[in-house]
Amino acid sequence: MTCYRLAYRDRRHVYIVPEARVMKPFQLARRQVLTGLAMPRAVSSQTINASRTWQRAFSASAAAASTLPGLDASKLTVTKTTTPKELMDSKDLVFGKNFTDHMLSVEWTATDGWHTPRIIPYQNLSLDPSTCVFHYAFECFEGMKAYKDDNGGIRLFRPNKNMERLNKSSARIALPTVDGDALTKIIGELVKLDSRFIPAERGYSLYLRPTMIGTQKTLGVGPPGSALLFVIASPVGPYYPTGFKAISLEATDYAVRAWPGGVGDKKLGANYAPCILPQLEAASRGFQQNLWLFGEEEYVTEVGTMNLFIALKNKETGQKELITAPLDGTILEGVTRDSVLTLARERLGPKGWNISERKIKMSEVAEASEEGRMIEVFGAGTAAIVSPVRNISYRGKMVECGLKEDQEAGEIALQMKNWIEGIQYGDEQNPWSVVI
Amino acid sequence: MTCYRLAYRDRRHVYIVPEARVMKPFQLARRQVLTGLAMPRAVSSQTINASRTWQRAFSASAAAASTLPGLDASKLTVTKTTTPKELMDSKDLVFGKNFTDHMLSVEWTATDGWHTPRIIPYQNLSLDPSTCVFHYAFECFEGMKAYKDDNGGIRLFRPNKNMERLNKSSARIALPTVDGDALTKIIGELVKLDSRFIPAERGYSLYLRPTMIGTQKTLGVGPPGSALLFVIASPVGPYYPTGFKAISLEATDYAVRAWPGGVGDKKLGANYAPCILPQLEAASRGFQQNLWLFGEEEYVTEVGTMNLFIALKNKETGQKELITAPLDGTILEGVTRDSVLTLARERLGPKGWNISERKIKMSEVAEASEEGRMIEVFGAGTAAIVSPVRNISYRGKMVECGLKEDQEAGEIALQMKNWIEGIQYGDEQNPWSVVI
Repeated sequence: MTCYRLAYRDRRHVYIVPEARVMKPFQLARRQVLTGLAMPRAVSSQTINASRTWQRAFSASAAAASTLPGLDASKLTVTKTTTPKELMDSKDLVFGKNFTDHMLSVEWTATDGWHTPRIIPYQNLSLDPSTCVFHYAFECFEGMKAYKDDNGGIRLFRPNKNMERLNKSSARIALPTVDGDALTKIIGELVKLDSRFIPAERGYSLYLRPTMIGTQKTLGVGPPGSALLFVIASPVGPYYPTGFKAISLEATDYAVRAWPGGVGDKKLGANYAPCILPQLEAASRGFQQNLWLFGEEEYVTEVGTMNLFIALKNKETGQKELITAPLDGTILEGVTRDSVLTLARERLGPKGWNISERKIKMSEVAEASEEGRMIEVFGAGTAAIVSPVRNISYRGKMVECGLKEDQEAGEIALQMKNWIEGIQYGDEQNPWSVVI
Repeated sequence: MTCYRLAYRDRRHVYIVPEARVMKPFQLARRQVLTGLAMPRAVSSQTINASRTWQRAFSASAAAASTLPGLDASKLTVTKTTTPKELMDSKDLVFGKNFTDHMLSVEWTATDGWHTPRIIPYQNLSLDPSTCVFHYAFECFEGMKAYKDDNGGIRLFRPNKNMERLNKSSARIALPTVDGDALTKIIGELVKLDSRFIPAERGYSLYLRPTMIGTQKTLGVGPPGSALLFVIASPVGPYYPTGFKAISLEATDYAVRAWPGGVGDKKLGANYAPCILPQLEAASRGFQQNLWLFGEEEYVTEVGTMNLFIALKNKETGQKELITAPLDGTILEGVTRDSVLTLARERLGPKGWNISERKIKMSEVAEASEEGRMIEVFGAGTAAIVSPVRNISYRGKMVECGLKEDQEAGEIALQMKNWIEGIQYGDEQNPWSVVI
């Protein structure tokens, strides 16, 4: 498998290229494909010289492309709503269903770069039916949250990680990249403007959804010549309002979420719609989520829309081990995943835990359960932080995951939730929590 | 690998399920997920009986679901534009950039089924920014064409194949299915209303783009409770206005388009955006398209957005063989692919050709070229019908594909184009061509 690396052309444009390949002038290819120059109707063996000429022309335009304006936070304009919404009772909040008064909107074009960022009243998007987002899934997004601390301050959690991932996602589908610091700044302005929507209670927050879509109006399949970056905000309650409830998973072996050389590690819309049917299959048998296995070895990858952590006693060494799948291109690079790993190395490592990013087969998980070596299993994601797993249905058997009958969460999951929440709400001073 | 099969619940609802599995009540699962009933926050080992009760409840609702209205062509309403467009010069047409006066629009909701179909003036879609099509790629489409015959009649080419595939695509991402005959009928009405946009010249046609998108306004990841089916129409010219131009391909080994257990055989938006970057890579080195290889064996799968056909002399038997990749779940089920196969079996088979749907390694293709056994290679798709291939860049070498230096198309490609075009324009009477 080839790994991708990020290749920066300039501060505003980032592209991914296969590791160990010479950087190719994607930006120019984009422009020439759009103008019809890049795709000569035919390249016969006689046209190799012509092709070289074309590549030289390409390099010239690349220099021009780098002068395109980036996102300029200082130019932000704000148009306030004239019909502010009534606040809902916190207890009635449903994830991602109710939104604040305003949204952030920034257009991009291949000719002019990023346009003026605008905060505007929350409103419908009006798009031509030929717009490429409707046909070819030119869309990627992020999920992040703003929290109110005990002093009334508003905090984001590791926003730089979201910005980094957004750029990896957009570059992978030929959408533009964006200055993450500038975007974080204007997201902060949106959050401050709509701060009355953030419930002050612990466990509540404002879910933020930065989204980038291709807006070119053509059915030709090519890199979009225009895009829209928008951010909407939805007040949300705790995932487990009455305390943890351990979930049951169904291991999925008949459908595959991601593949080496694919895009499973990016937060693309394309990774989500195809996952619903296996999810419905699992739901029809009473399971909350499905667990994606990969390959003949049935490696454990992800659960539903979360990364998965498995705590067990290692068969060989007897040492306690916290395991999650390595970032091999098929695993979403979760911010919570990274936070759990970092905290585990820092706080569990000294207590004798081995923290492993490694492949683990479902049969190994089942074996650990049978041999009494299973400690606990939990999902990790922005929505729930951690989501304890009671058992996994696998090949017609239930693999118990270490919880006692009356227990809804293991010790590690509980600790992780408390540690991460403590940072998110500013109880613990930590550079991960950014006051805006 | 598990194969999927289509399982019809009733005439309006079709779902795909893994082969050899008992049909599961997806429709009810969908409704219960939407209402929050299907996903109990926790299913502990004690709640298995409750889960069974829930499945009974499901079956009851399934009966109710089957009474949802299907698409009723007789209810079609037509609102004509008051600002008809000026016709463009046929020579200035660019694929998928200019559209006719009208569009078809049909809404679907999980509670009310298919609503009244409407032909309306071509217009923007107005959608809430939280609409699931923007975030999770709930979108699928078809590509088909309407042709004017010499008698002024208007014809569609195998529309039933497009309808069949649309339903396979939509069902795979938990969008509704639709009565294909009813949809073909109202598409016909749209085409007739906008028939002045269809150029009468040979090679020209009206490209039709049926598209289905999820329209539920929520960031929760689940089956959409509402959808929009729309059809837009774009007059298009011949792919090769001045005769065939053989293309050069670059074999892509670092990125993978589709995989077993994935969705590469469906016409989902999700399959397209991730393909642009490898396409740009190939373009940056002067190739018109990339050729997707799969697996360690480097099996030849598809080229850019077309199926691929390889004509060679079989190494063992010496027999002439026309090969395309089998429908193993990673190959788009192209209508042109099927047409080429059918015509080849009917018209080339008696002339000694062996027509094969089989896996072929890129190394076998290179070997055939080196040994002088290569006859010709061509892509097949709705846009170009056939697209002759001059050579393929593979592991730093150019694999020549049987064309002479001054030759832009092989004999089989030429014949196929003539045969298929003859049917499409009604020169040859054939049930594939449907007069509307």
